[in-house]
Amino acid sequence: MAKNVYDFTEGGREMAGLLGGKGAGLAEMTKMGLPVPPGFTVTTEACRHYLRTGTEPGGLRREIEKHLAALEHTAGRRLGDVHEPLLLSVRSGGRNSMPGMMETVLDIGLTDATVRGLAETARQERFAYDSYRRLLQMYGTTVLGLDRGLFDGALHRMKADRGLTDDAGLDAADLTGLVEVYKALIRSATGADFPQDPREQLYEAIRAVFRSWNSERARLYRRREHIPDDLGTAVNIQMMVFGNYGPDSGTGVAFTRDPATGQRGVYGDYLSGAQGEDVVSGVRNAVPLTELRHLDPASYRALGDFTGLLETHYRDLCDIEFTIERGRLWLLQTRVGKRTAEAAFRIAAQLVDEGLIDEDEALARVTGEQLGRLLFPRFAATGDRPPLARGIPASPGAATGAAVFDSAEAVRRAAAGEKVVLVRRETTPDDLPGMVAAQAVLTSRGGKTSHAAVVARGMGKVCVCGAEQLKVEPALRRFTTSEGTVITEGSVISVDGTNGTVHVGALPLEDSPVAAYFEHGTGDGDLVKAVDRILRRADEVRRMEVRANADTPQDAARARRFGAQGIGLCRTEHMFLGERRRLVEAMILARTDPERRAALDALLPLQRADFTGILEAMDGLPVTIRLLDPPLHEFLPDRTELTAALAAAEARGETPDPHATALLAAVNRMHEANPMLGLRGVRLALVAPGLIAMQVRAIAEAVAERHAAGGDPRPEIMVPLVASELELHLVKTEIKRVLAEVAAETGAVTGCPIGTMIELPRAALTAGRIAEEAEFFSYGTNDLTQTVWGFSRDDVEAAFFPAYLEKGIFDTSPFETLDTQGVGRMIEIATAEGRAVRPDLETGVCGEHGGDPASVRFFHHAGLDYVSCSPFRVPVARLEAARASVMVIQAAPAGRFSGGVPGQG
Amino acid sequence: MAKNVYDFTEGGREMAGLLGGKGAGLAEMTKMGLPVPPGFTVTTEACRHYLRTGTEPGGLRREIEKHLAALEHTAGRRLGDVHEPLLLSVRSGGRNSMPGMMETVLDIGLTDATVRGLAETARQERFAYDSYRRLLQMYGTTVLGLDRGLFDGALHRMKADRGLTDDAGLDAADLTGLVEVYKALIRSATGADFPQDPREQLYEAIRAVFRSWNSERARLYRRREHIPDDLGTAVNIQMMVFGNYGPDSGTGVAFTRDPATGQRGVYGDYLSGAQGEDVVSGVRNAVPLTELRHLDPASYRALGDFTGLLETHYRDLCDIEFTIERGRLWLLQTRVGKRTAEAAFRIAAQLVDEGLIDEDEALARVTGEQLGRLLFPRFAATGDRPPLARGIPASPGAATGAAVFDSAEAVRRAAAGEKVVLVRRETTPDDLPGMVAAQAVLTSRGGKTSHAAVVARGMGKVCVCGAEQLKVEPALRRFTTSEGTVITEGSVISVDGTNGTVHVGALPLEDSPVAAYFEHGTGDGDLVKAVDRILRRADEVRRMEVRANADTPQDAARARRFGAQGIGLCRTEHMFLGERRRLVEAMILARTDPERRAALDALLPLQRADFTGILEAMDGLPVTIRLLDPPLHEFLPDRTELTAALAAAEARGETPDPHATALLAAVNRMHEANPMLGLRGVRLALVAPGLIAMQVRAIAEAVAERHAAGGDPRPEIMVPLVASELELHLVKTEIKRVLAEVAAETGAVTGCPIGTMIELPRAALTAGRIAEEAEFFSYGTNDLTQTVWGFSRDDVEAAFFPAYLEKGIFDTSPFETLDTQGVGRMIEIATAEGRAVRPDLETGVCGEHGGDPASVRFFHHAGLDYVSCSPFRVPVARLEAARASVMVIQAAPAGRFSGGVPGQG
Repeated sequence: MAKNVYDFTEGGREMAGLLGGKGAGLAEMTKMGLPVPPGFTVTTEACRHYLRTGTEPGGLRREIEKHLAALEHTAGRRLGDVHEPLLLSVRSGGRNSMPGMMETVLDIGLTDATVRGLAETARQERFAYDSYRRLLQMYGTTVLGLDRGLFDGALHRMKADRGLTDDAGLDAADLTGLVEVYKALIRSATGADFPQDPREQLYEAIRAVFRSWNSERARLYRRREHIPDDLGTAVNIQMMVFGNYGPDSGTGVAFTRDPATGQRGVYGDYLSGAQGEDVVSGVRNAVPLTELRHLDPASYRALGDFTGLLETHYRDLCDIEFTIERGRLWLLQTRVGKRTAEAAFRIAAQLVDEGLIDEDEALARVTGEQLGRLLFPRFAATGDRPPLARGIPASPGAATGAAVFDSAEAVRRAAAGEKVVLVRRETTPDDLPGMVAAQAVLTSRGGKTSHAAVVARGMGKVCVCGAEQLKVEPALRRFTTSEGTVITEGSVISVDGTNGTVHVGALPLEDSPVAAYFEHGTGDGDLVKAVDRILRRADEVRRMEVRANADTPQDAARARRFGAQGIGLCRTEHMFLGERRRLVEAMILARTDPERRAALDALLPLQRADFTGILEAMDGLPVTIRLLDPPLHEFLPDRTELTAALAAAEARGETPDPHATALLAAVNRMHEANPMLGLRGVRLALVAPGLIAMQVRAIAEAVAERHAAGGDPRPEIMVPLVASELELHLVKTEIKRVLAEVAAETGAVTGCPIGTMIELPRAALTAGRIAEEAEFFSYGTNDLTQTVWGFSRDDVEAAFFPAYLEKGIFDTSPFETLDTQGVGRMIEIATAEGRAVRPDLETGVCGEHGGDPASVRFFHHAGLDYVSCSPFRVPVARLEAARASVMVIQAAPAGRFSGGVPGQG
Repeated sequence: MAKNVYDFTEGGREMAGLLGGKGAGLAEMTKMGLPVPPGFTVTTEACRHYLRTGTEPGGLRREIEKHLAALEHTAGRRLGDVHEPLLLSVRSGGRNSMPGMMETVLDIGLTDATVRGLAETARQERFAYDSYRRLLQMYGTTVLGLDRGLFDGALHRMKADRGLTDDAGLDAADLTGLVEVYKALIRSATGADFPQDPREQLYEAIRAVFRSWNSERARLYRRREHIPDDLGTAVNIQMMVFGNYGPDSGTGVAFTRDPATGQRGVYGDYLSGAQGEDVVSGVRNAVPLTELRHLDPASYRALGDFTGLLETHYRDLCDIEFTIERGRLWLLQTRVGKRTAEAAFRIAAQLVDEGLIDEDEALARVTGEQLGRLLFPRFAATGDRPPLARGIPASPGAATGAAVFDSAEAVRRAAAGEKVVLVRRETTPDDLPGMVAAQAVLTSRGGKTSHAAVVARGMGKVCVCGAEQLKVEPALRRFTTSEGTVITEGSVISVDGTNGTVHVGALPLEDSPVAAYFEHGTGDGDLVKAVDRILRRADEVRRMEVRANADTPQDAARARRFGAQGIGLCRTEHMFLGERRRLVEAMILARTDPERRAALDALLPLQRADFTGILEAMDGLPVTIRLLDPPLHEFLPDRTELTAALAAAEARGETPDPHATALLAAVNRMHEANPMLGLRGVRLALVAPGLIAMQVRAIAEAVAERHAAGGDPRPEIMVPLVASELELHLVKTEIKRVLAEVAAETGAVTGCPIGTMIELPRAALTAGRIAEEAEFFSYGTNDLTQTVWGFSRDDVEAAFFPAYLEKGIFDTSPFETLDTQGVGRMIEIATAEGRAVRPDLETGVCGEHGGDPASVRFFHHAGLDYVSCSPFRVPVARLEAARASVMVIQAAPAGRFSGGVPGQG
C-alpha cells in the first residue's frame, strides 16, 4: 500500500513532486536541524486519488492519526485538549508555486471548549477569540463554500455599531460576540453547526484543500501557466506558532542577500506582535529586518546563523518566512528567492567567487530575460521621490513625454516633433496610431495580457498598464492620482516599463551600463564585471553561433560589438525606402523595358554601396543577404488615401494630376487582398527577374570591390518565400548566371553560397527536396508562425491576442516565444529531412525568435547551427545558447503552448 | 551482363518500362503474329547508362550487330548493300508518351552508293533522292546539332530558283542537286563529310536519340508533366517500309471504334501514296478509312481482321498506325486510343456487354474528369455549320453573349443585364472585373496555362484561349477570322469551352442529358444507360462516402438527387447576405448590448428557418453546419469606396451622412491587412460569442421543430479555423451550454456531434490533442492550401499562377488538384495522429478538392471516411471514390507536384 503521509523528518528537497514545494522545503529544513514547527505532509498522490475517485485513499486516516499522535508527542500538546490545545495549520502546496490559488485553514482545533483553554494558556482572551473568529471564517468559506461577503458584512456591521474603522479596535468581548454571529451565520446557511470536533475540522479542511486544486481560479491559473492539471496538491499539517502573542513575538521575511542589488548580508522585513497574514494585508508597517538586532538580539543572531546555513545548503539566495513566538524563532518556509536582474548577475558571480557554484552553474542562475532587461536604458536614480503611481511593468524600458489622452492628439503632437506618452483607461485597436506615435503607453486598467501590454510589447514600446490608482478622464484631458495630484494634457511624465513606476516631470534617462559596456567597451562596475565574466564563459561553452539581423553598416558594426559572429539576415527592402522609393516607383510605373532598365540602373550603384559597407563592417564573417521580399505595392502610396484624394479633387472640379492617376492605376492593378500571401519573395523574382538580377549584380560587384581593397567579404545569398524546390532551382540558375557574368567582367571570384528561407509550411514539409538545391536553410520564424497558425501579425496582435492570452490559449504571444508544437515541429521536420539529403546543410533562424530566451533553447535542442537576432539581443542569445548547452534538461513543467520546450519552463 | 537489346520477338506489352511504350507495342504485335516490319529495341537501361557515364554499356554494339544480322536475314536485305539496301528507322520511345519531344532519324542506310541502288530497286529516282535529302536533314539537325534553318533555307532557295512554292514540284534532278547542297552544308558547318558508312549513321543516330532525352524541351515537358528525369528513352531500330511508292501504297490511322461517339466499327483516315510524316504535315487531305474498301479490298479486310484481334487482345479501343507498301499491309504502332468522354462511357459499357471486361474494369476505363465534362450544358447539334474559329478548350461548358473587347464594357453591359463574352488578345489582372461580368472568355493567344485559362477555370467560367486564327483589335472593337469574317462589338457569339469552338450567333444551349438524368431521373439514351450502369457499380464498390457542400434547401435537395449521402459543409455566412446584411450591419454597429441583442434576436428566426429547411431536405442524413467563418467586416461596405465617397462629399461641401460616417469608423476599426489570417472562424466565436450562441440556438430549435414534425434531423456542428485544442474546448463548452439551454426549454434532445475543420497547419500538427475535443475532422483543403503554400487565392491565381504553370512549378493549380507533398502530407499526419487518440474519429474533406478526381483518389488512399463537394460534382466523386477502391495502385508516373498520388497519374 502506498505511503500517503510523510513526517517532516522523512522528506527532503528532492521530493517536491510528491510533497509539494512547501512540504519539501519544510522537510529539508527539519533534516538540517533547523527550528521548524513539527508537522507532516499528505502527498500529492493522495490528492490525485481523492480527485480521481472522490474518496480518500484507504488507510489515509490511520496514517494521519499515527503522524498526529507523533506531532502531539513532540509538541507536548493535544488536539482538542481543553486546557492547552494544539492548534494546526492546514496549508496547500503543489509542485509549482501557485500563489494564492489554493486554500489554507489556520487555527484548526479551536472549539467553544478549547478557545477558553487557549485564552487561559496564552493569557490573552482577545487573541484566542480573534483566532477562533478567523477559523470560523476560513472554514466557512473554504470548507463549507460560503460567500466571504457574509462574514465581512457581519464584521463591518459590528465595527459600525462600535463606531470603529479598524479591526484592531475590537476588544475581546466584541470578538466573542462576533464568534457567536459567525456560528449563527454558518448554522443558518448550512443547516448545521460549526463542528466542535477538531478531528472533523482537520479532515474536512484536508478535503477542502484537495478540492481547491480544481477550483475555477486554480484551473485558469494552471492553464495560463501551462501547469498540468493532473499533478494535485500536497497538504501540510503543522503545529501553529504565533507571532502575535505580544511584543516578544513577531513575524518576518528574510533574504540571504539583497534581492534588489545582490549585496551580501541579511535583508528583509520584520513586524513585531503580528501574524504572517497581517504582513501580507499591510495593516501595519514592517520595519527593516536589521531592527531585530535591537528588538531581539538572540533571535537576530540565530536567524543570521540559519540563513547562512540555508544559503550554503541551497547554494543560492534563499527567502525565508519566520515567526518568533515569545522569543523563540521558528522557520515556516524557505525557497530559492526571487531577485532583480541586476542581483541575479551579481549573486551568480559572487557564488562562483565563494566557491559555492562553478561557472557553468552560474550560467544556469541567470537568464537571458534578465540580461535583456539590463540592456534597456533606465532612469537615473530617482532619489527618494515617490512615484506618482505604480502599475504593472508590461513592456520594459524608460521614456518621458507629454501626457496625451487620445490617439489623435498623440499623432498630432508627435508629428510636430513632441515626445508624448499616451494615457488611456485601456487601449483598443482604435488607439493604434497613437501608440505608434507615442514614446510610452500608460493605462489604468488591464494586466500583462491587456491590449496595451500586448501591442506595446509587440512594438517594443515602453508600457505600464493597470495603474489602478489613477483616475483617467479623457474628456477632461487629465488624470488624477490617489493623492489627488492632477496631471493635465501636455504635462511631462516619466514612465518606467521595467519596474512599473510613473513619475511627474522628465526624469533624466541614462544608458544601461551593460549596454554601454558592449557599445563602447567601457565600465568596470560589479555588474559589468559579473555580466562580462558570465558571457565569456557562455562563449566558451555554447554550441550555436549567434549572428545578427542588420541592414546597415552601422547596425552591422554595432552587432559585431555586441558579439555577433556574422549577419544572419540582411533585409534589402529597407534599402529601398526614403529617397530611393522614387526610383522603385519609377521602375514599377515604367511602361517600356528601357524605362524599367533605366530605373534599375540608377538603383544599382546605390545598392552596391550598401553591400560594400556592410561587407566591410562584417569583414571575414558571413553576411546572409536576403533578396527583395515584400510585394512591390508596398513602395507605392496607400490605395484608400490616393483614391479619396483623387475623388475629392474630382468633386472640386479640378483637373486630375496625371501622375497621381497613373499611380492609382498601378496601385489598383497591384492591389492584393492578402499581401502577406501574395506576389512577393521568390515569386517576384520569378515573375519580374530584372530586380533580383540587379541585386545579385550589386552583391557581386561589392564583393569584387572588397577583394580589390584587400578585404575578406563573405556574402551568402538567401532566396525568400520558397515553397517548392523548383522555384529555388530556377532563381538559383538566374543568380549563378549573373554571378558568372560579373566574374567574367571583373575577373574576381564572386561565387557564394546560395540558400533559402524556410518560412512556409510547404518548404518545411518538402525540405528534403529543397535541400538538394539549398546550401543553407534559414528559418523565418515570423512568417512561419503566421502561416502555421494562420495569423496575420499586423491584425491579430491588437484584435484578439489579449483575449487569447487572457483565456490561456497561449501564455506568451507565439510571435515572442516560439510555438514548439506547431512551428517548432515544422523546424524539426525540415532540419531532419534537409540534413538527410545534405549532411553539411547549414541551418539557422532569422526570425525575431532568434533573440528570445526560451526559443533560443529550443533551437539549441533542435540542433540548429546558429540564431540571428537584432544586434541588441545578441548578448541574450549568446547567454541562452550557452545555458541550453550546459543545463540538464529538466522534467519541465510542460513548456509554452503545452509543448516540450526543454530547459527552464 | 545486362541484356541491352530485345528483338521485337522477345518483348511484350508488359515491358514498357524497359522497352518504352512504342517498343512494347511493336513487340506485342509481333508476338501476336501481326505484320510488323522486323526490328529490335535498345533498352531504356542502356540509355540511362549512356546518360550517366557518357559511354554506351559494354557489349552494346556486339548485341546490336547480332540483332542487325538477324534483321537483315529476316528482311532479305543488307544495310549498305549497294543494290538493294536495307533502310532503317531509328525512333525514340520512353515509358510515357512525350509526343514530339525526342528525336527520330529515318532512312538510315542511304549513302551516295546505296541511294542509287534504292533508286533502281524502287524504280523511282525521285523517291530515292527525296529520302536521302530527308536523311541528310534529320541527321544534320539531330545527330550533328545543326540549325534546321540551314536546310530549310537551302530548300527555299532551290524552290525560288525553280519558281516553285511546293516541294512536290521538285523533280529527281532538283533533289539530286539538293542532296549535294545539303552535303556541302554539313561539310562546311562541321568540317567533316556526311558519313558514308551506314553503321556510323546508325550508331550516331542511336546516341543522338539517347541524348535527346535531356534536350531542353524534353526536360521542360517532363517537368510540366512530372515525368521523372531519370527514366531514359528506349531506341527502336526497324526496317523502313514506304507508303509513298505509288498508288498501291499508302499510310493511315485506324481506330477500332469511333473515338468521338464510341460507335462500333472501323474508323480512321487513309492517305494513298504517302508517308506518315505527310499525314502529320497535312500536305494533302486524307480520306475516310472506309474508302480503303474500294482502293485495296484485301488490305481493308486484313486491317479489319487485325484491328479486331488487337481490340480483343487489348480489350479496349486501340489506335493503330499502318502503312501499305505495294499492297502489303504493315502495322507500325498500336496503343490504347484516346476518346471523348461520351465515347469512354459507351465503350466501357459495350465492352462489359461483350464480355471483354468486367464491371470493375469498366470503372477503370472511365474517369471522373470525363464524367464531369458530360455534366456541363452544351450546344445542341450545330449541324454542319463550320465554327468561326477553333482554340484551346481551356474551361469547359458552353455560353453565348455579345462580344465585348474590354473589361469596362463587359462590366457596363452586364450591369445592364446583357450577357457578354469578353474577347481579348490575352487577359491580365486588369481584366478581372470583365471576366467576372462575362459569360465566357475568348482569347487569341496563350495556352491552357495562360492567365485567361487559369483564372476562368478558377471561376468556373467558359473559356477558349489561343484561337490564333483570330485577329483581335480592341481599339477597333472587333475581331476578324482567318476567312475575313469581321465580328464587331455587340454581335452575339457562342463559345464552347469543352471542344474549343467559337460560332457566330446564339447557338441553342441544351442541358447535358446526363445532368438531366440526375436532376429529373429522365432520359434513356445509350449514354445515360452507360453512365447509370457504371455509377451503380461505383456505389457498390466504393469505401468513401460522398457528401455535398450545400447552403440552401434547394442545393441540399439537388445534392440528394445527385447521390449525396449528406451535407459535408453547410456555410452559414451565405445566409447573412442580401436583405439580412442590414441586420448583420446593425449588430456590428450596435453601441450597447441591448442593441446588439436586438439585432441577433432578429436574425435568430431567419437562421432557424434556414436550418429547418436544410435538415428537412437532408432528413435522415448528416448535415455538417459550419459556424460563421469570415471576418465581420466582409458584411460592411468597401473601405476605399466609402472613404472616397465621403471625401468627395466633403469636397463638395456637403454635410456628411452620419450613418456613412459611423459605417466608415467601423470599417476602419475592423480593417485588416490580411483578412484571410485575421479575426475570423473560431477566433470570432471566442471574442464575440453572442453570434455563435445565436447560431447554435437556431440549430437546436430547428432540430426540435423537425423532431416535432416527425423528422430525423442529423446536424453536426463544425468549428472553423481552429489552431489549438483549447480554442475548440472553449467554444465547445459554449455550444454545449446553448444546446442544453434549448433542450431544457423545448424538452427535445438537441445534442449533436461537435467537430472541427482542420484547415491550418497547426491544427494538423496538433491533431492528436485536437482529437481529444473533436468528434470529427473535416479537412478544409482550400484554406489549408492557402496556408501551407502561403498563397492568397484571391491574389495569386491571376498574379502569377500562369507563370508558375508555364515554368512547371506545378502542372495544375494546387487549388484544383490537391498538392499531395505538402497539403496531403498534413492530412496524412493529422489523420494518423487524430485516430491514434480517437479511433472512431470521422474524417472528411470539404474543400473544393472533394470533387477533383485525382484528389478524391488521394483521399481514398489516405483513409478518409468521406469527401464533400458541390452538388454538381457528386457523381464525379462517387465515380472516383470507386475507381480508387478497385484500381490497383500503379507504379505511377510520380504524381502531381512530383508527389505520390496513387492511381492514374
